[in-house]
Amino acid sequence: MLLPRINHRLLLRHSPSPPSFVPFPSSSPSRFPSFPKTALPASKLVSGVMTAAMAVRPPKLLFRQLFEKESSTYTYLLADVAHPDKPALLIDPVDRTVDRDLSVVKDLGLKLIYAMNTHVHADHITGTGLIKDRVPGVKSIISKASNSKADLLIEAGNKICFGSLFLEVRATPGHTLGCVTYVTGDGPGQPHPRMAFTGDALLIRGCGRTDFQGGSSGELYQSVHSQIFTLPKDTLVYPAHDYKGFTVSTVGEEMLYNPRLTKDEETFKSIMENLNLPYPKMIDVAVPANMVCGLQDRVVKA
Amino acid sequence: MLLPRINHRLLLRHSPSPPSFVPFPSSSPSRFPSFPKTALPASKLVSGVMTAAMAVRPPKLLFRQLFEKESSTYTYLLADVAHPDKPALLIDPVDRTVDRDLSVVKDLGLKLIYAMNTHVHADHITGTGLIKDRVPGVKSIISKASNSKADLLIEAGNKICFGSLFLEVRATPGHTLGCVTYVTGDGPGQPHPRMAFTGDALLIRGCGRTDFQGGSSGELYQSVHSQIFTLPKDTLVYPAHDYKGFTVSTVGEEMLYNPRLTKDEETFKSIMENLNLPYPKMIDVAVPANMVCGLQDRVVKA
Repeated sequence: MLLPRINHRLLLRHSPSPPSFVPFPSSSPSRFPSFPKTALPASKLVSGVMTAAMAVRPPKLLFRQLFEKESSTYTYLLADVAHPDKPALLIDPVDRTVDRDLSVVKDLGLKLIYAMNTHVHADHITGTGLIKDRVPGVKSIISKASNSKADLLIEAGNKICFGSLFLEVRATPGHTLGCVTYVTGDGPGQPHPRMAFTGDALLIRGCGRTDFQGGSSGELYQSVHSQIFTLPKDTLVYPAHDYKGFTVSTVGEEMLYNPRLTKDEETFKSIMENLNLPYPKMIDVAVPANMVCGLQDRVVKA
Repeated sequence: MLLPRINHRLLLRHSPSPPSFVPFPSSSPSRFPSFPKTALPASKLVSGVMTAAMAVRPPKLLFRQLFEKESSTYTYLLADVAHPDKPALLIDPVDRTVDRDLSVVKDLGLKLIYAMNTHVHADHITGTGLIKDRVPGVKSIISKASNSKADLLIEAGNKICFGSLFLEVRATPGHTLGCVTYVTGDGPGQPHPRMAFTGDALLIRGCGRTDFQGGSSGELYQSVHSQIFTLPKDTLVYPAHDYKGFTVSTVGEEMLYNPRLTKDEETFKSIMENLNLPYPKMIDVAVPANMVCGLQDRVVKA
């Protein structure tokens, strides 16, 4: 009989007693420890002088948007392909498309280091657990405010580094209490225009519902206006879902044309309170699974 | 009673007698007539000297990928947003998503000038006819080799200009006898890396079937190898469809990982001859409509 493989380290990190290791001090913006650089092979040393090939190249973002049709979810793959290790991360992977995502990672010769979620999804099961099973060393990331279990719990101001590139964490609650938006770094060598992975906080010409999982229409309105609409207008908006076939928008466009978030707060709240949406069909399965980043079998059986 | 509006100009251009005006001489690569520049307003003239605002700005590509879920079709919107008119074109629009596509064109303040197809699609009806009805002045484009009717019939070597940007036409028959690939221009001010809109000739890790509409596996193999795999390896591949949620690939990636086109020609032909695919369910409706770029009602009733 095959016993389920238990990730003791994960369980330990999220045992009822608070972990002694806090990955990010809450007082100020912080960075993950730098991604370990691969030792330079001796064969590349020429009389003790670095060759051009060895010189640190400017970071170069490889970016892929991937779509899961059943839940209309976008998964995003980002990597610094100028770094010798090509460190990569996946934002909002879906369980059904893990094979596809990992095949791209493999084909492109990337080293996957993080499998991250913008929030606890209610419409699909995250691929994070399967990815951790298949790729040793990958760390799961979700917000501390989501009250979920993950290898790394992030909060506003944290920076998630991959090679010389980084994502900045912005708290954007309202769809759920733990939603965050990941924004590519500001500064030399970081992508321009910036890219905002908004989860369900801001969708293209829409936004996520606010009637479950600690949702609040007032909070969502404030989140989008203070954390996303304050970004440069050319910032690219990459949401967690799209149901009409849009792939990208910009902050400037949504500030002008989002039919909900261009309204004043009271009108927005009224719109959100009168959507009359059906009960989310996957919520009772997806939320418990996603609260442990897709490692539900392990946690239950342990 | 409302009579269908007949586009006499289109019918005239495609009357049984060959048109006297040939948009592109077949002997050598040619350009569409330059897109007419907006006259500079007098208020911007300062002592007869051009101000900085008036100086010709380098072309800037606005690019949007749009997805139609039922047929898994990608429609592409391209525009030169540095040009005063923001001239734009749509590649492979779908009838069901014309409203969406035109809303983006409107929101972004673009002037749509071309609605183009990579080939006569068999799985959906092109949106070109509806777009021409809704946006006066838009010209439909398809290859001469497709034997279809359109405002402009293009062939290999033609350049399709929009503002200071252009697409180069490459003949890539094999999926159908009239398939073309549109490739962004080479040279200063054109996008880098280049972008290839490959239609069904080259799909991500796949290719279109070759058993209908004058298809030929041998021809497709030669097309992809001579016209697409000869582009720089970092050229972005944007296909007309994807069924697994991929949005983009590169020439280099497909040269390494395409499970069909990395094989030798005989193996490729054998693969294509043994796909055992069902009869395309939309073909009998879609092909007649697409042979007249979605203006089937007008042509039949006229």
